[in-house]
Amino acid sequence: MERKFDEELKNLKDKILKLGALVEEQVQNAVNALVKRDSSLAKDVIEKDTQVNRIEVEIDEECIRLIALRQPVGVDLRFITTAMKLVTDLERIGDLAVDICERAMELNLEPQLKPFIDIPRMADISMQMLKGALDAFVNRDSKLAQEVCARDDEVDNLNVQIFRELLTFMVEDSHTISRAVRISYISKYLERVADHATNIAEMVVYLVEGKIIRHMGA
Amino acid sequence: MERKFDEELKNLKDKILKLGALVEEQVQNAVNALVKRDSSLAKDVIEKDTQVNRIEVEIDEECIRLIALRQPVGVDLRFITTAMKLVTDLERIGDLAVDICERAMELNLEPQLKPFIDIPRMADISMQMLKGALDAFVNRDSKLAQEVCARDDEVDNLNVQIFRELLTFMVEDSHTISRAVRISYISKYLERVADHATNIAEMVVYLVEGKIIRHMGA
Repeated sequence: MERKFDEELKNLKDKILKLGALVEEQVQNAVNALVKRDSSLAKDVIEKDTQVNRIEVEIDEECIRLIALRQPVGVDLRFITTAMKLVTDLERIGDLAVDICERAMELNLEPQLKPFIDIPRMADISMQMLKGALDAFVNRDSKLAQEVCARDDEVDNLNVQIFRELLTFMVEDSHTISRAVRISYISKYLERVADHATNIAEMVVYLVEGKIIRHMGA
Repeated sequence: MERKFDEELKNLKDKILKLGALVEEQVQNAVNALVKRDSSLAKDVIEKDTQVNRIEVEIDEECIRLIALRQPVGVDLRFITTAMKLVTDLERIGDLAVDICERAMELNLEPQLKPFIDIPRMADISMQMLKGALDAFVNRDSKLAQEVCARDDEVDNLNVQIFRELLTFMVEDSHTISRAVRISYISKYLERVADHATNIAEMVVYLVEGKIIRHMGA
């Protein structure tokens, strides 16, 4: 029975990593849809969101089943309740990929304002943070989790930098405003992806060390 | 023991409602700080966020204690795990109140762009949604929860309307751009408050009916 439960916990970890990989792919494809002006790819991402939602519910149900059946306490119970919270963050990262696609499809109806450089960088850092946060979770690695939290500022700074650059476009030519604001929203969405990764990493620190390091901005 | 557990569940509900009332007050004060250009009130809201965070952790710990000690199954277990997810949404509404205050303080350094009419309306609807979602949770009222979900579009539409109006300011006078974009962020924050209320309401529908009505935008 003990061994069975260990196996179930391992399966749970695998499922969470699988969902993490899926939402990572969704964000990556959303940014590709934007950069390559590929509305058909954007539509694919939007459709695939139901899959993200389905897996989230499956993991949730598995967690409830494990609590009811195995009646874990201590570390194992905290691991499972953290998993339930964490998949909500993953699902919402999936929603943000959809939001990016919606703005990308709107932008694709107009000429390109400028080539994207900082947005893909923001996406890369956010994805590294997400991977780091999930690895930290499955390996109970508090040090890695704290490194993830420390990177949140990089993304926030890129968001500010992108916004400043967009502002110069808007001030110089009012025809660019609606596009520039849409791009600034996408930059905000990516900032929120990084926030979710940070939230997950903070939960891991709490899980491992019992210490609260709540993410309160700079 | 059964009776003791009922009492503990009632205390848990009371604590959640108390946290709900606190974050509602935080959002209300944040919007007041904006409308009345009161940076000192904005600072108070930002400081009070630690209280929101503290109560969230207390509720979380109480949920874990109840699961470990009472080993609930079925409806009671689902109620407690939903509570744990839901307080995360409440805590993040608290963070959004802080975000509103930060933008309000920046706006207060410049002359007022226009009187605020739609922003307070958005805040009112979002707060009604939040109250409704929490009432639906503690009373297991799926009908009320569905009514809350249905109102999300009202807030989304107000956000679009606010954005269009701000766009006309920006196009007419580029000196208004940085202020207008900040106001559009505040409008987005309130849209996200309503999203969190909708998320809570969706969890209630799932809790009561086992039916997923995932909020996928319009």
